[in-house]
Amino acid sequence: MEFCEIVVVGAGYAGLTAAHHLIKAGKEVVVLEARDRVGGRVYTQQLSEDFYVDLGGQWIGPTQDKIYALCQEFGVKTFGTYNQGKNIISLRNKVKTYQGLIPKIDLPSLLNLDFTLKKLEKLAKQVDLETPWLGDQAEKWDRKTLATFLDREVKFSNARAVIDAGMETIYATSSAEISLLNALFYIRSGGSLNALLSIDQGAQQDRIQGGAQLPAEYLADQFRDRIRLNAPVRQIAQDDTGVVVQYDGGQIRAKKIIVSIPPNLAAKIDYRPGLPPTRVQLTQRMPMGTVIKCYAIYDRPWWRELGYSGQIVADPNLPFQTTFDNSPADGSKGVLMAFCLANRARPLLNLSMEERGKIILAGLVQCFGPAAAKVEQYLDHSWAAEEWSGGCYVGLRSPGAWVGYTNALAEPCGHIHWAGTETATVWNGYIEGAIRSGEDAALSVVSS
Amino acid sequence: MEFCEIVVVGAGYAGLTAAHHLIKAGKEVVVLEARDRVGGRVYTQQLSEDFYVDLGGQWIGPTQDKIYALCQEFGVKTFGTYNQGKNIISLRNKVKTYQGLIPKIDLPSLLNLDFTLKKLEKLAKQVDLETPWLGDQAEKWDRKTLATFLDREVKFSNARAVIDAGMETIYATSSAEISLLNALFYIRSGGSLNALLSIDQGAQQDRIQGGAQLPAEYLADQFRDRIRLNAPVRQIAQDDTGVVVQYDGGQIRAKKIIVSIPPNLAAKIDYRPGLPPTRVQLTQRMPMGTVIKCYAIYDRPWWRELGYSGQIVADPNLPFQTTFDNSPADGSKGVLMAFCLANRARPLLNLSMEERGKIILAGLVQCFGPAAAKVEQYLDHSWAAEEWSGGCYVGLRSPGAWVGYTNALAEPCGHIHWAGTETATVWNGYIEGAIRSGEDAALSVVSS
Repeated sequence: MEFCEIVVVGAGYAGLTAAHHLIKAGKEVVVLEARDRVGGRVYTQQLSEDFYVDLGGQWIGPTQDKIYALCQEFGVKTFGTYNQGKNIISLRNKVKTYQGLIPKIDLPSLLNLDFTLKKLEKLAKQVDLETPWLGDQAEKWDRKTLATFLDREVKFSNARAVIDAGMETIYATSSAEISLLNALFYIRSGGSLNALLSIDQGAQQDRIQGGAQLPAEYLADQFRDRIRLNAPVRQIAQDDTGVVVQYDGGQIRAKKIIVSIPPNLAAKIDYRPGLPPTRVQLTQRMPMGTVIKCYAIYDRPWWRELGYSGQIVADPNLPFQTTFDNSPADGSKGVLMAFCLANRARPLLNLSMEERGKIILAGLVQCFGPAAAKVEQYLDHSWAAEEWSGGCYVGLRSPGAWVGYTNALAEPCGHIHWAGTETATVWNGYIEGAIRSGEDAALSVVSS
Repeated sequence: MEFCEIVVVGAGYAGLTAAHHLIKAGKEVVVLEARDRVGGRVYTQQLSEDFYVDLGGQWIGPTQDKIYALCQEFGVKTFGTYNQGKNIISLRNKVKTYQGLIPKIDLPSLLNLDFTLKKLEKLAKQVDLETPWLGDQAEKWDRKTLATFLDREVKFSNARAVIDAGMETIYATSSAEISLLNALFYIRSGGSLNALLSIDQGAQQDRIQGGAQLPAEYLADQFRDRIRLNAPVRQIAQDDTGVVVQYDGGQIRAKKIIVSIPPNLAAKIDYRPGLPPTRVQLTQRMPMGTVIKCYAIYDRPWWRELGYSGQIVADPNLPFQTTFDNSPADGSKGVLMAFCLANRARPLLNLSMEERGKIILAGLVQCFGPAAAKVEQYLDHSWAAEEWSGGCYVGLRSPGAWVGYTNALAEPCGHIHWAGTETATVWNGYIEGAIRSGEDAALSVVSS
């Protein structure tokens, strides 16, 4: 039997950050990662020597201080997301262009949209990030879905199409699947709805030069010898003195363990003794969102030449909700990235990448014309098909689960501490939240 | 490596029924059961030589033909649930008695209650059991919670208290956690809301002499040598010719496998290759209900002498939603059974049985007077704490999951077929549904 002080399960940003801090505090750490790489839901795929795409989390923005600091620490550069030119809105298979944040829809729809977004902003301010289940309205907001809220507030179909595309892009799930409370918590956690929706001054403002996985790699470089890849954890047994961890490849005894993987995966580990029933049932109630991140790759960003930003907002007549210009900083390739999410992703989940490619490219052609068909390459990444994620971006509590299960996710269970972006209060669901959760877990272990 | 034709995972009513039919069809079968007993979520605990309590599923009623047939086949007797005398309703800590089905509440509440129940009956008739996700209203009904429906329909607080207690007793979850569509599907699956709510002519009409586990034991007796207990399945690998099953204790190669365990547990098995993403994500969206089944055991059913039925319907001021007289058929003991469910169960989940006992007995005293405190024994069973259930009665789709994932639960995946009451169309969630699902799975395997 091997011994160490602290085992960290998962080498995403949360686990790597936790390990990094523990090692800095002089602890002896082993990191067990199920995948053959670090980074977790942040995954940069190198397509050639000097060209990569981010198949997972990729954007960072203002107030996400920890990830910017990490970039700075390792000399990783960031660059602004391309955000110039005409945007496209596609409603009932008709394409229109517009400038700036406000799509070209009828005035009543615009007013309705504006009113609804402001109402969400206002309500979100009432949520306490540490205790979202408390508060006068918590129970009421947790018993209705976000869809029910929108059904009541949004009366104009164009407004609804735009807001649905926006909400689905934020949550990667349909508004039927989360409560209003969870929607508001998430907004509050990122500061404001405007921040979540925006490129400039928002969560999509910057990209990471070299790919969003790069800072994770540099972080891992500090302690590569402590990281074991292809090492999924199967069992965590506790006794008075610590834990014994069984993983594919061996077993380790440690004093403490930090589990930094998504709730649905954490639930698959065989805990002995079993975890508290509240935690068991809460992790049953945190399904992962549904994302297929689709890439159409061209020899150059030709849409820029035509005055397009590359951004589309689309109603369900198209197979994606939104698109973005995801070309390299130097524009040496043209990359359109389409988010196929939630109910639009589900019919495509069990298809092959080739079949999906036809559907996605047809949607791009509908918006940009035949030039969009002339790809060098189509590829996509369906996170629901990733064994060690089960979906993306995050595990979102289903209706009733905030009020029903309160803090059962982050509360340590004996020698087991929890991290992962789902446990974060600030920037929950984002890389930033993952890093913060890793710091918190390291602190909690050191001080316990 | 051991070989057999068909492996069945789980020895609850679904798995046992499947195995039974396969063996009758001449198949060579091995049943792998994680627990140290058969019966699954039906669990009869013998407290003395001639006295038992049913800690899990226990009732059967009209149209549940399969379970009655099973009882008959093995000479197991049934007897009527005790249903005479005054019922109790407890609202705002005030206790009133009433006769029959209709609680003593104000007339506007009564009318409101009646109207709402009839509306649910009517809407449920529109659900097609084979394809609940189709139908004109399916999408609309799946995007709102049952709570939202009730918030709109039920305007009188006494009506709401009664209907909440009733709904929570049916679903073992809060109305915030399921969609209206799922609520309607479940009603339709059991025939009618009236059937689900009733003792006489309803799903609670009869009990099984000797305990509800007894027919499962007799069924298992037909092929005990084929059943392995304490044998949780950890991995199912498929190739062209069949499956290889890893369980605690060995590995078996088989042509086909039937997995008859609850969706949340089926999701924990390591499948190679992975299951279709739609199934992976659907099982993330089928949390188990929350039930603590509580027993106050007395030397005799003393409440009958006072003219009480033993039935209580209570608002959230009491720790249980409903109680029933669960005494043995001959009345040789007095047994009050209290359902502590959903949001009333959650604060009690992490307490000890002793702590819960104080709370539950105090509630019974409030309704029946000090005699209720004089128990011979208090015991309860918290199904969320059962490793091989994770909750009860069943896995219920969270809002949006019917429309989002349609038939992904029951659809075979290569050589893997699925059973379990959650896959049933008729009497989904009941013993009857489990048996029917086992028959269907056996048929599907034999004919595939």
